[in-house]
Amino acid sequence: MILTDSLLDFFLETRKHSEDICSPLETEDYVVQPVVDVSPPKWHLGHTTWFFEEFILKPHASDYTEFNEDFSFVFNSYYETVGKRVVRSDRGNLSRPSVKKVYEYREYVTEGIKGFFQESQSKELNALLEIGIHHEKQHQELLLTDIKFILGNNPLLPVYSKAFQDHPVETHQQDWISVEAGIYEIGHTAEDFCYDNELGRHKVYLQSYEISNRLVTNGEYLEFINDSGYGRFDLWHAEGWDWVNQNQVSAPLYWHEVEGEWYHYTAQGLQKIDSNAPVTHISYFEAFAYAQWKGLRLPTEFEWEAAQAFFPWGKRWEWTESAYLPYPNYKKADGALGEYNGKFMVNQKVLRGGSVATPAKHTRHTYRNFFHPQLRWQFTGIRLAK
Amino acid sequence: MILTDSLLDFFLETRKHSEDICSPLETEDYVVQPVVDVSPPKWHLGHTTWFFEEFILKPHASDYTEFNEDFSFVFNSYYETVGKRVVRSDRGNLSRPSVKKVYEYREYVTEGIKGFFQESQSKELNALLEIGIHHEKQHQELLLTDIKFILGNNPLLPVYSKAFQDHPVETHQQDWISVEAGIYEIGHTAEDFCYDNELGRHKVYLQSYEISNRLVTNGEYLEFINDSGYGRFDLWHAEGWDWVNQNQVSAPLYWHEVEGEWYHYTAQGLQKIDSNAPVTHISYFEAFAYAQWKGLRLPTEFEWEAAQAFFPWGKRWEWTESAYLPYPNYKKADGALGEYNGKFMVNQKVLRGGSVATPAKHTRHTYRNFFHPQLRWQFTGIRLAK
Amino acid sequence: MILTDSLLDFFLETRKHSEDICSPLETEDYVVQPVVDVSPPKWHLGHTTWFFEEFILKPHASDYTEFNEDFSFVFNSYYETVGKRVVRSDRGNLSRPSVKKVYEYREYVTEGIKGFFQESQSKELNALLEIGIHHEKQHQELLLTDIKFILGNNPLLPVYSKAFQDHPVETHQQDWISVEAGIYEIGHTAEDFCYDNELGRHKVYLQSYEISNRLVTNGEYLEFINDSGYGRFDLWHAEGWDWVNQNQVSAPLYWHEVEGEWYHYTAQGLQKIDSNAPVTHISYFEAFAYAQWKGLRLPTEFEWEAAQAFFPWGKRWEWTESAYLPYPNYKKADGALGEYNGKFMVNQKVLRGGSVATPAKHTRHTYRNFFHPQLRWQFTGIRLAK
Amino acid sequence: MILTDSLLDFFLETRKHSEDICSPLETEDYVVQPVVDVSPPKWHLGHTTWFFEEFILKPHASDYTEFNEDFSFVFNSYYETVGKRVVRSDRGNLSRPSVKKVYEYREYVTEGIKGFFQESQSKELNALLEIGIHHEKQHQELLLTDIKFILGNNPLLPVYSKAFQDHPVETHQQDWISVEAGIYEIGHTAEDFCYDNELGRHKVYLQSYEISNRLVTNGEYLEFINDSGYGRFDLWHAEGWDWVNQNQVSAPLYWHEVEGEWYHYTAQGLQKIDSNAPVTHISYFEAFAYAQWKGLRLPTEFEWEAAQAFFPWGKRWEWTESAYLPYPNYKKADGALGEYNGKFMVNQKVLRGGSVATPAKHTRHTYRNFFHPQLRWQFTGIRLAK
Repeated sequence: MILTDSLLDFFLETRKHSEDICSPLETEDYVVQPVVDVSPPKWHLGHTTWFFEEFILKPHASDYTEFNEDFSFVFNSYYETVGKRVVRSDRGNLSRPSVKKVYEYREYVTEGIKGFFQESQSKELNALLEIGIHHEKQHQELLLTDIKFILGNNPLLPVYSKAFQDHPVETHQQDWISVEAGIYEIGHTAEDFCYDNELGRHKVYLQSYEISNRLVTNGEYLEFINDSGYGRFDLWHAEGWDWVNQNQVSAPLYWHEVEGEWYHYTAQGLQKIDSNAPVTHISYFEAFAYAQWKGLRLPTEFEWEAAQAFFPWGKRWEWTESAYLPYPNYKKADGALGEYNGKFMVNQKVLRGGSVATPAKHTRHTYRNFFHPQLRWQFTGIRLAK
Repeated sequence: MILTDSLLDFFLETRKHSEDICSPLETEDYVVQPVVDVSPPKWHLGHTTWFFEEFILKPHASDYTEFNEDFSFVFNSYYETVGKRVVRSDRGNLSRPSVKKVYEYREYVTEGIKGFFQESQSKELNALLEIGIHHEKQHQELLLTDIKFILGNNPLLPVYSKAFQDHPVETHQQDWISVEAGIYEIGHTAEDFCYDNELGRHKVYLQSYEISNRLVTNGEYLEFINDSGYGRFDLWHAEGWDWVNQNQVSAPLYWHEVEGEWYHYTAQGLQKIDSNAPVTHISYFEAFAYAQWKGLRLPTEFEWEAAQAFFPWGKRWEWTESAYLPYPNYKKADGALGEYNGKFMVNQKVLRGGSVATPAKHTRHTYRNFFHPQLRWQFTGIRLAK
Repeated sequence: MILTDSLLDFFLETRKHSEDICSPLETEDYVVQPVVDVSPPKWHLGHTTWFFEEFILKPHASDYTEFNEDFSFVFNSYYETVGKRVVRSDRGNLSRPSVKKVYEYREYVTEGIKGFFQESQSKELNALLEIGIHHEKQHQELLLTDIKFILGNNPLLPVYSKAFQDHPVETHQQDWISVEAGIYEIGHTAEDFCYDNELGRHKVYLQSYEISNRLVTNGEYLEFINDSGYGRFDLWHAEGWDWVNQNQVSAPLYWHEVEGEWYHYTAQGLQKIDSNAPVTHISYFEAFAYAQWKGLRLPTEFEWEAAQAFFPWGKRWEWTESAYLPYPNYKKADGALGEYNGKFMVNQKVLRGGSVATPAKHTRHTYRNFFHPQLRWQFTGIRLAK
Repeated sequence: MILTDSLLDFFLETRKHSEDICSPLETEDYVVQPVVDVSPPKWHLGHTTWFFEEFILKPHASDYTEFNEDFSFVFNSYYETVGKRVVRSDRGNLSRPSVKKVYEYREYVTEGIKGFFQESQSKELNALLEIGIHHEKQHQELLLTDIKFILGNNPLLPVYSKAFQDHPVETHQQDWISVEAGIYEIGHTAEDFCYDNELGRHKVYLQSYEISNRLVTNGEYLEFINDSGYGRFDLWHAEGWDWVNQNQVSAPLYWHEVEGEWYHYTAQGLQKIDSNAPVTHISYFEAFAYAQWKGLRLPTEFEWEAAQAFFPWGKRWEWTESAYLPYPNYKKADGALGEYNGKFMVNQKVLRGGSVATPAKHTRHTYRNFFHPQLRWQFTGIRLAK
């Protein structure tokens, strides 16, 4: 168990980091929701606050006064246990509470938690606080990618921050790492925090395989585009092919062709594609089609985990071939927190790794991220296997 | 022709009034678009400005420098002649340009017009300026009703302004005005401004009829509700009945039943229904069904115009039985301004009168407003005929 | 009042005609519903039968035994008064009752009516029978146009009947008929049958106008196509322009361009366009855009009725500029038959005339047909006015 | 390699069986498509025929004359390699070719294959014939379940066949089969036919588990219903819960509550539920929710295959927890036949076993069936594990 003092520091530092992410924004940027998957930044700021209020202060801090009883309705995301909520697609229709009011709410709850934990300590409470912190960290990543979408979808293409480089180049040569067939252990063991979907360390048998030590680059992906990769049905899943055609997809998200030259919108504004940077903002469908085109395949999440110590990772979430399913002996938590992971274990693909948007101390080699196969607004990437 | 001086005063006063309407807003309120028909206030402020820039300054002021060339794309509403534009349903997805930038744009163009007209005068230019002013006045009404929707749709139900009473009570007794059969003249004749759809004064033959001197009140409408008016298919058009059932409509927009008592959201916040105030925020479908239930009918727009001198009007736009169609000899203007009215003359109903949201000098007894029959966010009302 | 004998003959002849229309069909053709507006032929045969059973035999023939109590659910069209029904879009999902069973049902009810009227006579009953006959005649027109759609939408383009010429050529020269301004009487007066929407003969004032003595031909319409009529937004209503683009419309329904030559599907199979035949299968949106392109307009239904004695008509239903609205003093009938017309009086356009698909004795110069402005599967046409 | 003679017998017997399945139908039953997943029986009869024509006769039989060149367009299902096709949702809109013509087509192609194979033999051709036979067998199962849907969705609830018992009762006691942890071999090895998705026999490591020797019964499932299983969000996946609410699901497909008693539509008509028969026509979402409610889980497809020798199976396709993914070293075939399986390997769940609708010689313990998680019209079932 982490001692309360350092846990409180961790809490305060996490709270501050969310606000730092938003510091380059105009007030208006906090409000909009251009597509259903992208939530308004002020919603993220409010929702992560509500989580601490709802699961810690309201049930456990006896003298706590709720900041505003309507906020539970406004800032609940999907917890059916906790009652009614604004439907997800309506988040961008709410001008109130104002951004100023949301920051007041944040401060009120941050102070409330601080005061409460200075007086109360228990293993159970600390565990709740820890999950609240990790929950906020998870939203920090979404906050950044949602902000990128809000700005990158705007015809004025405003810069987010000149200081944030979201296209780091990898310089090492491509190579294949060989892994022998055999039984491997998968899942979390250490003492530190993890989500319930990583638990239940267990054995899997892997056939021998090879996995790339490097991500696919923009330059390599461009060859796929230039070879009509988006026009050859035989490379795609049937659902992927429908997705390409219905949405007229012909390049990664944020790519723009300007007078025969490829540019992409980055946190630093519109820039020329760097062919040595790893390709990103591609869907699972595109990752799969690319691998088909190369005559290769994506690794499973187990292959990834068994080999991860032998290659650098953490700049791109990497699509795997694995569907998001429970590990053997998966047990979901009781009550509202049991809704955290288990109920999403259908029709989603697992991603492994982490990304330039992932906050510090928020990824580990057993972490299982998951998204629907058509989504692209995260910093996704492609690692090949054979 | 109005002299340039007073026209410029009219212009400046109109520009200021749009900003006065927005003065009670938080920055966030300027941004959202909860349903497709409701545009963000900052869009109205920008669009009315773009209209002056696009149709006067850019083509006529030789040394004019465009404020920002992307704004044409952002603030064009539906003018196909003028080029591509943000699709209507995406207006609420744009956080930029910021509210501050839109106000700068307004000031830049207002000053531009002022400087230009102080030096240039012509019948043609004045006519363009006049249509620009009336265009902005038309948007002022939408601005107010869109703001009401943005706030009234928010679960926090914020007050817009305690000073704005949008539910004035009419105190005179209900009575019937009899009009004899015969030929009546319809359409605009005076020298002052009107839209092209009012022109072509012409004769119509009216059968004898009676028209109410008063609007239907909340109290009267409540009897319809209590008599299961929303549950009796025989009172409704087939499309109206589908609309009621698909949207589960059971009362006017903004009405809330709280513990057996009816309240409605007003510009002053949530209030008890006043049974003597005229009912509002009802669709044509509801107005028609109400009239059916009373064994009466709605007047045509010609009956309304022929009788209007004999009753007070101007607080509620009044649904008529007339479809929105061209008058005999209707001619639409050339170029982009020809898109103002004519292309909407199908599948809409005519409303006559004006409303508490209509700005001063913006209505007259020949004015033809028009909306699709299911829309309710305007201050609509019901006047009966027989 | 028509004597019972001749009315019964009229009934029997009408019943037979419906079956004659279907005689060229394969069993399978009776079953499908390729779009929601096109009902399966067996549904028409059953529904027109149900009408006699439901409104005459069940309530008035004391010893009548219902053929099958489930048929009321299957064959009711839109009569809310009469109870639940198969939703319109599901008619093509029902393989049972079989075609054979529907013909048995027809014979059972035809015999039932015959027996009943041989013994019972009254003004009221005869009026019911007469409306049932005209109801079936109305469906005969739909039956033919629905069959045309079912076959013309099939990739094998089967012939309906070599004997049915649905593209008669008009040979007289185009000329303009001038009508003076003044008061005209509109609506039905004669003793013979009409629908409630034609009643209430009343005066209208018409401005002076001219109306064409001939319909627009395929050859004339082709000039509009060749002059990019489908590509010029300024010719279209806003809703028409959306319709053109969403459906990628570029020619009338059933037209096919084959190696640079225009063909159309007719009841006799695929044929070359005859440039002298009147254009047909165009929507109101297309009729309006064509008139705009010519610098002319469509007549109102009142202009049409006042002038109709001076030109031939009856091969094409002619779109008018009038919206479908009640005449002054319109009264809908009590009970289920009151649902016949009145509840459709919103968002539809009036058509006047008749068509090659209209059965004998089923049209007259006061007849008001009505459809939504985008529909094309009827034999619609264009007559210009100015 | 199977000798040509017995293979031809197998072919002829399979062709006949498809027609036997359809023998109780009325002509009209062959035509309709009540939902997109359910194809018209005549389409199945034509499509299975087209498969032999397209992949064997046209490319390999040098003197073969195509029956009708339009049929390729009408009867192709999803093979992009082979050209354009009628979109799936339009299959029920085609009345032609008639049923009679489809049977002529069948006979023509059956005779064509017979004549061709009597003269030509090769390993490659026999393999093509074999896949065509298994393809038809696969469609025989769909044919039966589509027919059940067509009839069971009709308000008249017609009987398919009194001879076909689709609700066989299992009489053995429920018990748990224990399987030890260890490495198991999965996938096809025998010489006989299998699909490409079963190949690549490989090792998996399984944790120790227990699996039920019996399927869940109607009686057991009724307890779940009575315990508000359809109303408790905590038992469902998030997507499952949306599915339940959007479709207002409250019982398995075909169940009807009549005066407090549960009935279901069967091939023999409407019958009372037998509480000892295995529950069927449930989605994966329902299977999962049921298991959650019991505090148990569904087996993976590997657990199922490793244990299947110890329990009876074959009456219900059994939902597994496994997503449909390629086995290690999966290779899809070249050309059009490569579209058979691989392109569906996303967003679907694996089912194991077989059903009362599965034709003889068409299932084996390595067979992998797959459907989207919401589908219910197959004879699906639930086997629990822990």
